[in-house]
Amino acid sequence: MGEQERLRRNRMIDVMNQANLDGYLIVDPINVSYLTGFNGDDSYLWIGDTGVCLLSDTRFDEQIKEECPDIGAAIRCSGQTTLGLLEGVISDKTFSSRRPRRVGIEASTMTVSLLTAARTKFPELEFVSRASDVEALRAIKDDGEIAAIQRAIDVSIDAYRDIRKSIASDATEVDIRDELEYRMRKRGGDDVAFPSIVAYDERAALPHAIPKRGERYASARMVLIDWGAKKDGYVGDLTRSFLTERGLSDASREYRAKFSEVFRIVKEAHDRAIEAIRPGVICSDIDRIARDTIRDSGYGEYFGHGLGHGIGRVVHDFGGFSPSAKATVEKNMIITVEPGVYLPGWGGVRIEDDVLVTETGCQTLSERLSDDE
Amino acid sequence: MGEQERLRRNRMIDVMNQANLDGYLIVDPINVSYLTGFNGDDSYLWIGDTGVCLLSDTRFDEQIKEECPDIGAAIRCSGQTTLGLLEGVISDKTFSSRRPRRVGIEASTMTVSLLTAARTKFPELEFVSRASDVEALRAIKDDGEIAAIQRAIDVSIDAYRDIRKSIASDATEVDIRDELEYRMRKRGGDDVAFPSIVAYDERAALPHAIPKRGERYASARMVLIDWGAKKDGYVGDLTRSFLTERGLSDASREYRAKFSEVFRIVKEAHDRAIEAIRPGVICSDIDRIARDTIRDSGYGEYFGHGLGHGIGRVVHDFGGFSPSAKATVEKNMIITVEPGVYLPGWGGVRIEDDVLVTETGCQTLSERLSDDE
Repeated sequence: MGEQERLRRNRMIDVMNQANLDGYLIVDPINVSYLTGFNGDDSYLWIGDTGVCLLSDTRFDEQIKEECPDIGAAIRCSGQTTLGLLEGVISDKTFSSRRPRRVGIEASTMTVSLLTAARTKFPELEFVSRASDVEALRAIKDDGEIAAIQRAIDVSIDAYRDIRKSIASDATEVDIRDELEYRMRKRGGDDVAFPSIVAYDERAALPHAIPKRGERYASARMVLIDWGAKKDGYVGDLTRSFLTERGLSDASREYRAKFSEVFRIVKEAHDRAIEAIRPGVICSDIDRIARDTIRDSGYGEYFGHGLGHGIGRVVHDFGGFSPSAKATVEKNMIITVEPGVYLPGWGGVRIEDDVLVTETGCQTLSERLSDDE
Repeated sequence: MGEQERLRRNRMIDVMNQANLDGYLIVDPINVSYLTGFNGDDSYLWIGDTGVCLLSDTRFDEQIKEECPDIGAAIRCSGQTTLGLLEGVISDKTFSSRRPRRVGIEASTMTVSLLTAARTKFPELEFVSRASDVEALRAIKDDGEIAAIQRAIDVSIDAYRDIRKSIASDATEVDIRDELEYRMRKRGGDDVAFPSIVAYDERAALPHAIPKRGERYASARMVLIDWGAKKDGYVGDLTRSFLTERGLSDASREYRAKFSEVFRIVKEAHDRAIEAIRPGVICSDIDRIARDTIRDSGYGEYFGHGLGHGIGRVVHDFGGFSPSAKATVEKNMIITVEPGVYLPGWGGVRIEDDVLVTETGCQTLSERLSDDE
C-alpha cells in the first residue's frame, strides 16, 4: 500500500530538481489523489525536498488515516486558513531541509485569488508557474492502473449488455440513460465516468447531445450511446451506434444502405487507426490516418472532433489523438479511438474503444464488445 | 424567455459602474449559465458596457441558439484560442462603446495560467480581481428559481419515500444510495445534486461518510441519509436519520433512549433556528441559537460543522449559517438548516431542511417530509 504513490512522488522530486524548485504546491484534487492515495476534497499537497505533507481539515482526518497512513498530514483548526497551515509546514524540517525559495505551482488549476493570497503571505517565496508535471506522469499507466481501467471498461460493457437487448418501446433517451447508469452501479461501478450520451436520429449528429425526454424508442431509427463507468478511481469510455427495430424494418432501403455505408467508413477509420498505434509514432499521425479514411470516402467535413483522448482518473486525462497533437505515443498510455461521421438532420455514427499501447502495438481493452453490438 | 437573465446582466452593469470597470470576463460556468441561460461547458461571457457576448466553440453552436437566442455569441474556429476570440470581441462596438481599459475578473475561479495568458495578450488592459459579484446576486432567488428549487426538493422527497419503506434486509449503504439516486431520476430529477451519503451506525458519526459495500441493513441499528436531486438547474438538499427495524426491536432500551435523546436535541436546535430566521438578522446569530441548544444539552463538542449553507444552482451556493458568518439574512435567500450530533463509535443524527426567507420569517420548503420520516 502506498508504494506506487511513493514512486510517483520520487518522480516529482526529479522534476523539481531539474526545474531548480525546492518545493511544489499541488492543488488539483486529482493530482493530490494520484500522489498520495487520498481521495477527499479541498486538500493540498506540499512536496518538499525531504518529505511531503497533506494540508487538510477535520472532515478528512479519519479518511487520511485510512487511505494514506504513510503520509504526513497537517489538519487545519477552525478559523485557520490553508495558507496559515502551509506556513508551519514549509518551515518544518521534516518536509524541507532548508527554507524553500522557489516553489512550483499548478498554473492551470490554481486560482488567481489563491496565488495572490500566497504571494501576500509569503513575499520571500518565488512561485513558479508549471504546466502538466503531474499530468505527464499520469499519462503512462502502471499495472495497477491498467487493471483498474480494465475493470471500469468491463463494468461498462456488462451494464450496456444488460440494457441493450431489452430497451422498452416507450423509452426516451433519458430512460435509457437512467437504466444504463443504474446498471453500471449494479455491476460494481462506483460512479459514472461522465454524463452518458443517448441520442436518437438527428440528435445523434450532435457529438455532445444531452438526453431528452421527448421521442420514444419505438419511433427512433438509430441510437448513439456514449457511456463509461468509474471503478476504483479509474474510468472507461465507450460508444456504440446501432439501428433500432424500426430502423431495421420500417425504414426505407436507402436509409439502411446509408447507415451501413457510414458505419462501414467509421469502422474502417477506427480499425486503421488502431492498426497504426505503437510506441514512437506521433499522435497527430494516428488522427490523420482515421481522418484521411473518412475524407477519402467523401465525408471529411462531417468528422469535426479529435480522434481520441487519454483516459485514466478522469475521462479527459491527457491529450491523445488530434490533428495538432505533436506528442509521441508511448507504451502504457491508454487512449480512446472514436472516429465519427455526423450528418446534420439525419444522424450520426461513432465507434469508440479504449486501447492500451503495448511494446509493439496496442491492445483493445474493450475488444469483447463487438463494434456492432 | 431570457428576461430574468437580462435583469441579472443589468445588475452586473451596475456593479461594473460602481467599480469603475468597463468590461468583465465571466469564466465560472455556473455564472455564465446564470447570466445567459446557456448550460454548456468551456465557454466564457464578455460583459461590455453596451452588450454581452458568449465565447464558445462549435460543439455548442446549436445549444446556444436553443438556450439563449438573444445573446451574441462568438464561436472559436479550429486552432483559435479563446483569448484570440476575445480580441475581436473587445474591439467590437456592439459590445463595448470604447476600447476597454479596466476589466473585472473572477479571481476565485480564473486560473493563474489564463490570467497570465490574458496579460500577455492584452498588455494594455488592467485586470481587476473581483470576488463574488455574481455570487452575491445569486444568493437572492427570484420566483422562477424558488419554484425550481421547490421542484428539486419535491423530487428528492418523492424518491426518498419510494425507497424508505422497502429497504431490503441485505441492502448495503451503496445499495440504498443506488436505489435512491435511481428513483430521483425516475421521479423527474435531471441528476443528483451531490453524491448521496448513506451511513449506518458508527459511520453516521462521519459528517461526510462515503457509502460502503460492507454492512447489511438487517445488522444496522441506525441510518443517516443526506441526499438531493437536481432539477431544471437547481438543487435540493435534505437529511434524515432513523432507527432501523433492528434498532427499534433488538437494540437495548438504553440504545433507543440515547437515540431518542440525541434526536430530540437535534430537532430542538433545528426548530429553534428556523423560528429565528427572518430578514435582518445576522447569519452567525442563527448558527449560535442552534449551537447553544446543543451545547446546553451537553453535546456541544459533537456538532463540528456550520448550521447551514445557501443552495441554488449548486449545493454550496453561498455562505449561509456558521459561527463566523457576518452576512445579514435577506428575503428570498434559500438556506439549509442542518444541525447534527455525531458521537464517535456510536453514530450520528442530523436533520436537514431547506428554508426560504420570507418578508417576516421563513418557510420550510421540505415541510411535507416530517422530521422523523
